Amino acid sequence: MRMPYRLSTLFLRTLREDPADAEVDSHKLLVRAGYIRRAGPGIWSWLPLGLMVKNKIEKIVREEMAAAGSQEVHFPGLLPKEPYEATGRWEEYGDNIFRLKDRKDADYLLAPTHEEVFTLLVKDLYTSYKDLPLSIYQIQLKYRDEARPRAGLLRGREFIMKDAYSFDISDEGLEVSYQAQRDAYERIFKRLGLDYVIVKADAGAMGGSKSEEFLCPAPIGEDTFVRSSGGFAANVEAIRFEVAEEVDASKTPAAEIHESPKTPTIATLVDFSNQNHPRQGGEWTAADTLKNVVLALVSPEGKRSLAIVGIPGDREVDQKRAEAWFSPNDVEQATEEDFSKHPQLVKGYIGPTKSGSQFLGEKAASKIPYFVDPRVAKGSSWITGANEDEKHVWHLTYGRDFSSDGIADIAEVVAGDPAPDGSGPLELARGIEIGHVFQLGRKYAEALDLRVLDENGKLVTVTMGSYGIGVTRLVAVIAEQSHDEKGLIWPEAVAPAQIHIIAAGKEESVFEAAEALAGEAEEMGFDVMLDDRKASPGVKFADAELLGMPWVIVCGRGLEAGEVELWDRASGERLTVKLESALAEITSRRK
Amino acid sequence: MRMPYRLSTLFLRTLREDPADAEVDSHKLLVRAGYIRRAGPGIWSWLPLGLMVKNKIEKIVREEMAAAGSQEVHFPGLLPKEPYEATGRWEEYGDNIFRLKDRKDADYLLAPTHEEVFTLLVKDLYTSYKDLPLSIYQIQLKYRDEARPRAGLLRGREFIMKDAYSFDISDEGLEVSYQAQRDAYERIFKRLGLDYVIVKADAGAMGGSKSEEFLCPAPIGEDTFVRSSGGFAANVEAIRFEVAEEVDASKTPAAEIHESPKTPTIATLVDFSNQNHPRQGGEWTAADTLKNVVLALVSPEGKRSLAIVGIPGDREVDQKRAEAWFSPNDVEQATEEDFSKHPQLVKGYIGPTKSGSQFLGEKAASKIPYFVDPRVAKGSSWITGANEDEKHVWHLTYGRDFSSDGIADIAEVVAGDPAPDGSGPLELARGIEIGHVFQLGRKYAEALDLRVLDENGKLVTVTMGSYGIGVTRLVAVIAEQSHDEKGLIWPEAVAPAQIHIIAAGKEESVFEAAEALAGEAEEMGFDVMLDDRKASPGVKFADAELLGMPWVIVCGRGLEAGEVELWDRASGERLTVKLESALAEITSRRK
Repeated sequence: MRMPYRLSTLFLRTLREDPADAEVDSHKLLVRAGYIRRAGPGIWSWLPLGLMVKNKIEKIVREEMAAAGSQEVHFPGLLPKEPYEATGRWEEYGDNIFRLKDRKDADYLLAPTHEEVFTLLVKDLYTSYKDLPLSIYQIQLKYRDEARPRAGLLRGREFIMKDAYSFDISDEGLEVSYQAQRDAYERIFKRLGLDYVIVKADAGAMGGSKSEEFLCPAPIGEDTFVRSSGGFAANVEAIRFEVAEEVDASKTPAAEIHESPKTPTIATLVDFSNQNHPRQGGEWTAADTLKNVVLALVSPEGKRSLAIVGIPGDREVDQKRAEAWFSPNDVEQATEEDFSKHPQLVKGYIGPTKSGSQFLGEKAASKIPYFVDPRVAKGSSWITGANEDEKHVWHLTYGRDFSSDGIADIAEVVAGDPAPDGSGPLELARGIEIGHVFQLGRKYAEALDLRVLDENGKLVTVTMGSYGIGVTRLVAVIAEQSHDEKGLIWPEAVAPAQIHIIAAGKEESVFEAAEALAGEAEEMGFDVMLDDRKASPGVKFADAELLGMPWVIVCGRGLEAGEVELWDRASGERLTVKLESALAEITSRRK
Repeated sequence: MRMPYRLSTLFLRTLREDPADAEVDSHKLLVRAGYIRRAGPGIWSWLPLGLMVKNKIEKIVREEMAAAGSQEVHFPGLLPKEPYEATGRWEEYGDNIFRLKDRKDADYLLAPTHEEVFTLLVKDLYTSYKDLPLSIYQIQLKYRDEARPRAGLLRGREFIMKDAYSFDISDEGLEVSYQAQRDAYERIFKRLGLDYVIVKADAGAMGGSKSEEFLCPAPIGEDTFVRSSGGFAANVEAIRFEVAEEVDASKTPAAEIHESPKTPTIATLVDFSNQNHPRQGGEWTAADTLKNVVLALVSPEGKRSLAIVGIPGDREVDQKRAEAWFSPNDVEQATEEDFSKHPQLVKGYIGPTKSGSQFLGEKAASKIPYFVDPRVAKGSSWITGANEDEKHVWHLTYGRDFSSDGIADIAEVVAGDPAPDGSGPLELARGIEIGHVFQLGRKYAEALDLRVLDENGKLVTVTMGSYGIGVTRLVAVIAEQSHDEKGLIWPEAVAPAQIHIIAAGKEESVFEAAEALAGEAEEMGFDVMLDDRKASPGVKFADAELLGMPWVIVCGRGLEAGEVELWDRASGERLTVKLESALAEITSRRK
């Protein structure tokens, strides 16, 4: 039995003021419209309307998971430490997870993700290739002790995710399972009416191979991604530039070391060069200098070591790209203490060579690994540090005068950079991650020994895929993409009700007409919200716009002429229609 | 679109052996049949079949909550300490809750119940009597750090509850809200096919007034309750006996103190009495002696004090009843240390008087509060301790020779005791609590200052009701009430599928017939499980009985004659029917 949500009894209080701490629109509007309520930093209570939207999203996710052949299970939120210790994540997560002890002093965590227990459950139940492929998922609470919970539901400490895992015995099988989930994600996000892009993501950190993220473009997004007009799209962490082609160095002058007083920065060095060692046929620019950045890498076990990366002087290191590149190490800037342990490094004047010999590099004098940006082509020549105070070297040529231990592609990406696949210049944009599909491979299966017998009776390690959707985040993302200055505008697929009927007037007849219309709409299968409060039309109109049901029918004065007003909340269109044709009008206009 | 659950792909492994740690049938069977799987002590993972049962129970609960006018909300599982500190429960819960700290060292808990946040949310949104009555509920995880998690889902550390709260401004309103929930609970448990009793429960501990528990009678139940043929039913903690009527003491001999060597126990005292001080007209029995039990009461703040209770020597103190009576104090047995602080207490010979004067009692010589069992009538006389080593007093008469500070109704209830309402002798039984309805009253509203303006513009404190159902526990209780030695027997309302179709044979035609029948059953609206595995009929039959769908159709050899076998799992009946009439047969036999 359907029932209208009556605003006279609905547990709801709309607010006229934005919450003081709200920075993004979805946060402001979901709180003001009474969908959610803060219970603590990054922790939210769901009011009836918010729960309805969340439930409708979950229903769509479940339907598409079932269509993709994935079976629902449910794991605990509170988990013992041991599985996470076996994979090293108990330590790796650092401060980012909630840890606790039970009365017997045993260690537990509030699960931030469930890879370990999915893997162990399959290991527990299945033993043969005949049992595979298998795809299982859950919709469950996750916990992360975010340093800065913010933006309402977008970055919380308790949130709901759909997480699916696939189990196959072969890489080909994984490819099929991956594609099935990817297709399901496309169907889900389309049904939710979302504008999204699929970007290549960095797979390194998790030890897998193929990885793609579903991002909703939004200026408030925390993820930066790049895309070209030719269809390339990637997370900045995932983009990999080709190594520049070798250039002819046969006419490059020999390297020269010169005094370069007071040139500790790229800008001062470029000025000094143009004044004292002018270039043949044009000015020196920052792009002609090679900046040697000293990084401190911290391994998961806490071991700290230095690495130096030479990048063109017109670029900066991108911290996220550096962390992705050097994963699983953390990347920090070298400190004074780091430098004090390497007195041979002359800050501001570091370079690959010293007195004509290789200086940086694992096997060179410094013993410090040295990497170069992919733009450092064989044969390219550079102005760079000479490893002596106030001295630089000019025309230092890669492959002729100096070498490296390899590439480090960690420089920031700049709008206009060519896409690595040749599909045109890149533009940068920001997005909110709503989904992630990921070929985990055998990392967890190896760590937890998930093996099954193959056709020949031999034990083989299972290969896994991991597929996540941020369910509660989706509520905010939809609100973020679909609202105006007056309030929320829900797509029909997730709106608490498709139709919001307002009794605008004091006369009994207005209430009766609204009631009758609500009953009729329900019989037609609509979810209906009915504003049957004793309140002024102005209050009711403002609330209807704030609450954001896609269709609003105003029963008011027009009733005397047999007419009601029909609002299309999304387009803003308002038209007067006959009472008896209002619902038919909606039906004909529904997408 | 419905889909049969195909056993060839269902994520399931049935087990032939009971789990080693399982003591109760529901635990054994739910694990063996692949419904749930242990993830830690008192922590469970839900496999697809278990999740289906749980979801069907939740759906019934939601439907009946909606019918009772209760609106669904959802609170976090992780909550900040502050609200629980305001009500004193942060301390009161002691070791029974999970506490943790976030990265900023702030205190949190995993909510064991949500009274505080329900109260605060209503306070946050509502301000007027016009907003009430309100009934809201959630279906959410709860956490308790049980000392002894056991019995599978029956006593876990992470479990799901439906908890509803009502908010009214008057006691009459609360009564109506209470009744609406109570009625909904009756509908829910009837729809689930459960055999249950409603018992009066102890309301004292939570500070409220009226309280009833829904118990499923079961020998493994942790709750003891009593009932009479005349309809009285109560939790043993809740039963209150009338104070016995005054008896005529005019012919009772004066109290006499005698030496009573080697009589530290009731049995030795009774023997000694019969030998040395024979009773007029019959033997002395234990019921003629007054045992004075020394209890240590520990207040919520940790303060320890003694209390002594005089009860007839043929009864023991019931620990649960004592804790309910002395709530919010904990009740412990007095230790040697307690006695050492009260050297005037002579163990084995304690009594209300000493040398003819009142000795026990707050205002008497000992300063220790003294209570008596309600069976200690005015005028009744007793053999009891004389507070001297190896001495007792005979004919000590209540009201004449000694007094008390009041009643303490904490003696065990014995089968045959009269029901307090005169409805006949009591019988004792054990039960599993599945629901609890409870008039909380104003305890939480007062502690958290939930007040609204009444019709006269005056602030009044809201009165609340609390209504809980153990959702995950219900899965186990249904299994407990409905199984046999072969496996589970689900009622149709919660069975993962109503019909389990077995393809019993190797021929393609058998599989085709089973598939066709499954499709037909689904079109009729049944949820269907189809055993399409390549396995022997014996394995399939055993699994069908273990998994417990209410109807099983075996497609096998009989197909040649156009016949299938139909099993009624509950009655054990098996009959041969025409293939084409099998589904009609089920329809006609459904309850």
